[in-house]
Amino acid sequence: MAGEGGEAVRNKQVIFRDYVSGFPKESAMELRESTMKLRLPEGSNGLLVKNLYLSCDSYMRRRMTKLDVPSYVDSFKPGSPIIGYGVARVLESGHPNFKKGDLLWGFTGWEEYSLITAPETCFKIEHTDVPLSYYTGLLGMPGMTAYAGFFEVCSPKKGETVFISAASGAVGQLVGQFAKLFGCYVVGSAGSKEKVDLLKNKFGFDDALNYKEEVDLDAALKRCFPEGIDIYFENVGGKMLDAVLLNMKIHGRIAGCGMNSLYNLEQPEGIHNLMNLILKRVRMEGFLVFDYYHLYPKFLEMVLPRIKEGKIVCVEDIAKGLEDAPAALIGLFSGHNVGKQVVVVSQE
Amino acid sequence: MAGEGGEAVRNKQVIFRDYVSGFPKESAMELRESTMKLRLPEGSNGLLVKNLYLSCDSYMRRRMTKLDVPSYVDSFKPGSPIIGYGVARVLESGHPNFKKGDLLWGFTGWEEYSLITAPETCFKIEHTDVPLSYYTGLLGMPGMTAYAGFFEVCSPKKGETVFISAASGAVGQLVGQFAKLFGCYVVGSAGSKEKVDLLKNKFGFDDALNYKEEVDLDAALKRCFPEGIDIYFENVGGKMLDAVLLNMKIHGRIAGCGMNSLYNLEQPEGIHNLMNLILKRVRMEGFLVFDYYHLYPKFLEMVLPRIKEGKIVCVEDIAKGLEDAPAALIGLFSGHNVGKQVVVVSQE
Repeated sequence: MAGEGGEAVRNKQVIFRDYVSGFPKESAMELRESTMKLRLPEGSNGLLVKNLYLSCDSYMRRRMTKLDVPSYVDSFKPGSPIIGYGVARVLESGHPNFKKGDLLWGFTGWEEYSLITAPETCFKIEHTDVPLSYYTGLLGMPGMTAYAGFFEVCSPKKGETVFISAASGAVGQLVGQFAKLFGCYVVGSAGSKEKVDLLKNKFGFDDALNYKEEVDLDAALKRCFPEGIDIYFENVGGKMLDAVLLNMKIHGRIAGCGMNSLYNLEQPEGIHNLMNLILKRVRMEGFLVFDYYHLYPKFLEMVLPRIKEGKIVCVEDIAKGLEDAPAALIGLFSGHNVGKQVVVVSQE
Repeated sequence: MAGEGGEAVRNKQVIFRDYVSGFPKESAMELRESTMKLRLPEGSNGLLVKNLYLSCDSYMRRRMTKLDVPSYVDSFKPGSPIIGYGVARVLESGHPNFKKGDLLWGFTGWEEYSLITAPETCFKIEHTDVPLSYYTGLLGMPGMTAYAGFFEVCSPKKGETVFISAASGAVGQLVGQFAKLFGCYVVGSAGSKEKVDLLKNKFGFDDALNYKEEVDLDAALKRCFPEGIDIYFENVGGKMLDAVLLNMKIHGRIAGCGMNSLYNLEQPEGIHNLMNLILKRVRMEGFLVFDYYHLYPKFLEMVLPRIKEGKIVCVEDIAKGLEDAPAALIGLFSGHNVGKQVVVVSQE
């Protein structure tokens, strides 16, 4: 197939054109056909891979900005492919952890074939009796984010009340399912009737609200949580966070996972109700999944059997082909996707 | 002197007149001379006390507002004396924990004599070889606040960088000294040259800044903390918190003790940089001293010997007599006091 002899093949790529401010457009990216020699450079300890699935995640908005402060990720490089999580097959390995034919998930390029130069950050896929695309979501970074954020950061107790914003997204849908399995009362917010139905009927949330149809978020939360909120899994920031702060219970916890509503704003909205952190002795903690990847084996042990039993489900929004990848990524920022947004590059 | 026979004595009182909004004035209070029978009501398990020192604390601003949500303290009652922490001597006891002649600190009224109806919330003063007024500050609620906030909430490590706002106040001056003794690098902010000098020369802070003279708080913090801040002891909220958020180090901690800058605002200022909690995986935790009073014996064990060795010092701003109490309390909200604001009612 590939690799041997190192023949040059077509390599379709999604190129990041230039930094954006405000709400990004598809024109921030362009499709390019280049060619690539299917051989590892001499002495490389990297991996030559064929990309199968690519993941669209909201943190990627940040990488489209020229970041002048140190961050957990770098800015994308204008003129180079978009970088993101993906599932790939190893065509040639210069690294002892991987061999030809292995499947992995980790950072790769938005292109057909990639040279991965940091194989030590990739995870070998050992379980293939589940859809491979799950390793961009449920079994990949979003899954670990939900797991670490809920169990490690939120310190949940059985019977507590849990609120999740952006709840039908890749992370939110899993936090809600983990919380339900753990014995919590779970409410999620989302931005359409379709998503609200999904939360209630597919993911088993106890209740759900469409934030776009609520005139008064504070009143909506009081309706859903007459006794208040123990745990808030924060994905959006802004007005929702302000309303939640008014409804936290004493000794509540807020896991700060993302503030999607802010990513596209030049000047982020102000949060006015932080005083409630003190009045209610609330702990609010930002976290990043990178600090928790050592728990991945424990996570798989918990989640794999439950997927097979149908106790944890996963809804994906699948874009077909690199051609549709820019629209899929941009759609994420306006909530266009329903469930985890994946791009299929190849099903081999 | 008092008590026996239950004769009626003059009882000068500072009466709370009515709820205030915005910045309170002395006229929110008035002095009244009433009389009081120096005898416990029949069957009371309370305490009849003579007040010696009263404490002015910034949380009291909140009690001057009509609070319609449950809070850790109630609103003051219009027409009744101001309530606050104080040091008092027991004249008559209906409670097994106390006997006539005992000294205590706890909630009492702003008046010469009080009937304390919840003696179980008061602490008996066992160590009288230190100034009694210290039990309104260093050895009382502010001391415990500093101790619990720094050691329990901030999880400090030797060598870390610590920033304290309102640093010359009752709590701040102690957090700084605890942090120095623990081996941290400590910087405080205050609102006058006199206070800044106090921080550096009296309390042994490594550095201090006058926030009123800094045009750019972010730049000032970058000057004081070129590598960033590990721990922020938050007493003020508002613009200072926003600037600190830009300067936190990865895995930093913020203990939310008060947001003094907000107490007098109808609509609190917005905080715009919360995204940094996520980017830097910062934990921000509000706390109240009430949750930590079980540590009081451990706290005394740590702090008493250090007071006697002169390793922990305390600066008090002393108002003489109930007549000066309203001005002392109001002065707190504009930073008029230098150090812990105390009112002497009687030195017996």
